[in-house]
Amino acid sequence: MKKTAESAIADEAELLAIIRASFFERMPFNRILGIELLSLHHDRPELRFDMRAELVGNYVRNILHGGVISSVLDVTGGLVAFLGVQKKLQGKPVAEVVERFSRIGTIDLRIDYLRPGTGAWFLARGFPLRTGNKVAVTRMELFNDQEALIAVGTAAYTVS
Amino acid sequence: MKKTAESAIADEAELLAIIRASFFERMPFNRILGIELLSLHHDRPELRFDMRAELVGNYVRNILHGGVISSVLDVTGGLVAFLGVQKKLQGKPVAEVVERFSRIGTIDLRIDYLRPGTGAWFLARGFPLRTGNKVAVTRMELFNDQEALIAVGTAAYTVS
Amino acid sequence: MKKTAESAIADEAELLAIIRASFFERMPFNRILGIELLSLHHDRPELRFDMRAELVGNYVRNILHGGVISSVLDVTGGLVAFLGVQKKLQGKPVAEVVERFSRIGTIDLRIDYLRPGTGAWFLARGFPLRTGNKVAVTRMELFNDQEALIAVGTAAYTVS
Amino acid sequence: MKKTAESAIADEAELLAIIRASFFERMPFNRILGIELLSLHHDRPELRFDMRAELVGNYVRNILHGGVISSVLDVTGGLVAFLGVQKKLQGKPVAEVVERFSRIGTIDLRIDYLRPGTGAWFLARGFPLRTGNKVAVTRMELFNDQEALIAVGTAAYTVS
Repeated sequence: MKKTAESAIADEAELLAIIRASFFERMPFNRILGIELLSLHHDRPELRFDMRAELVGNYVRNILHGGVISSVLDVTGGLVAFLGVQKKLQGKPVAEVVERFSRIGTIDLRIDYLRPGTGAWFLARGFPLRTGNKVAVTRMELFNDQEALIAVGTAAYTVS
Repeated sequence: MKKTAESAIADEAELLAIIRASFFERMPFNRILGIELLSLHHDRPELRFDMRAELVGNYVRNILHGGVISSVLDVTGGLVAFLGVQKKLQGKPVAEVVERFSRIGTIDLRIDYLRPGTGAWFLARGFPLRTGNKVAVTRMELFNDQEALIAVGTAAYTVS
Repeated sequence: MKKTAESAIADEAELLAIIRASFFERMPFNRILGIELLSLHHDRPELRFDMRAELVGNYVRNILHGGVISSVLDVTGGLVAFLGVQKKLQGKPVAEVVERFSRIGTIDLRIDYLRPGTGAWFLARGFPLRTGNKVAVTRMELFNDQEALIAVGTAAYTVS
Repeated sequence: MKKTAESAIADEAELLAIIRASFFERMPFNRILGIELLSLHHDRPELRFDMRAELVGNYVRNILHGGVISSVLDVTGGLVAFLGVQKKLQGKPVAEVVERFSRIGTIDLRIDYLRPGTGAWFLARGFPLRTGNKVAVTRMELFNDQEALIAVGTAAYTVS
């Protein structure tokens, strides 16, 4: 039985709350990164995080550590992979959807560092390139608060 | 004028101390990762870090966050790139060598996640693939305390 | 002295002719791939090639060999890198620009294979991600004649 | 029922003949590349090919086209993935093993170009990094006839 648009929207809000509470907030390293979910849009979910002293790589120039960038872009790609799975499971119980989340694993990741990671805050956006039954491929972008493109990434994830 | 083997060894120890103090210990995110330098051998430098609660990605299975892995392997590759530069500058003042360190930047990075990051501690080892005047290419491996290969990486760095 | 728009356009046409004649048509493996230049637009140059029996990898399903895809996307990225250099050299003699072309080299390349390479012809499009003085980073896409996205790539090139 | 060592060796020879005849020799683009199977050793299979005029990218310096390198390393990684599958299917009919071969697909590929591709012939060697039930990850190296390391690669393949 198909769900009505209204209950689908409700599911989205519920899903967002569950993902936020059980996934991001309970994943210790995500807390260190300070990642906040901005959008769970299937075609372009968004995360953001603030610059903080702990995230600095080069203390002379006050720029993000490259590992912060790769970490955030991996999380962003994983979120895209998850949303692709979630779309395929539409109408399934939220618990089942959340369970699938925990099975998603990064196969590999490429990060291209384009500009120094300077800024007061950063926005990461992800895009699905392919959502298969076994593997999802995603593209990710990281912008600073001046909308400069700091880094891009591509990653493959197992989703089953 | 070539330096004697003895003074070269002295330089190595001095360099190690400077790198440790000024680079690793003052780079905030490296402290969060808990990276310790084990070896500055040109052909295969090594780092290690302990599992800590903050580094966990999946709290159910208690495994490293993928971002910790990509971060550490990027640092490892950067160290290989630096040591390649340092080898070319042998006999130059340590200050000049250290200055070059700060100019090394990651162009891009690929990480392959092979096995779950479980363990009490982890060892990262890097290898030079090519050390050019402009670009260095490196290969990296991450092992856990059981000597299982957790992840590998390849990266390119600007070195001038 | 700045060139007028008219002579700049003339340069473009001249450059296109030279690139086509001296680069693509004299590069043996590009002839095997059957690559034709469609557009030298700086922000999104395009190439195309026809499916031919020689380019098949899987003869049962009649799909492109993965190596054809990686080859064409590498050529596309190299073209983006070249056009970035050419833009910086605007107003310089064509000979100088062409000479720079021969110095461009691929540092590394990532290809993601998204869908089977079926089709009567294929279009590759490239985009600059960063055009530095030493390194250029590019993104590439391959579409088939149904506008399905077959593969994407990211690559870094030395440009000096 | 386990096979005796003797019949296992026979299987290897039979498999080699079948792979050579039905796979490499009937795959048109592999013929253009001129790939020959040297070894089907599970832990480090080897291919080789001769320099030929058609494979040249830079006709001034007479070096291999980068696409030839990425093509050969992709084939090498695919062979490693296949041999990993074959090892798991040991004792199964050759037909079944060969059928599995046709289902192997490249998910993604990274190639690092280390030195100009000059030489009279080239040897490619592959190594398994992980052979899972769904995904295999491989590492590849390309040497020239002087044993110089020309390029390396890493790739992920679907194997089911």
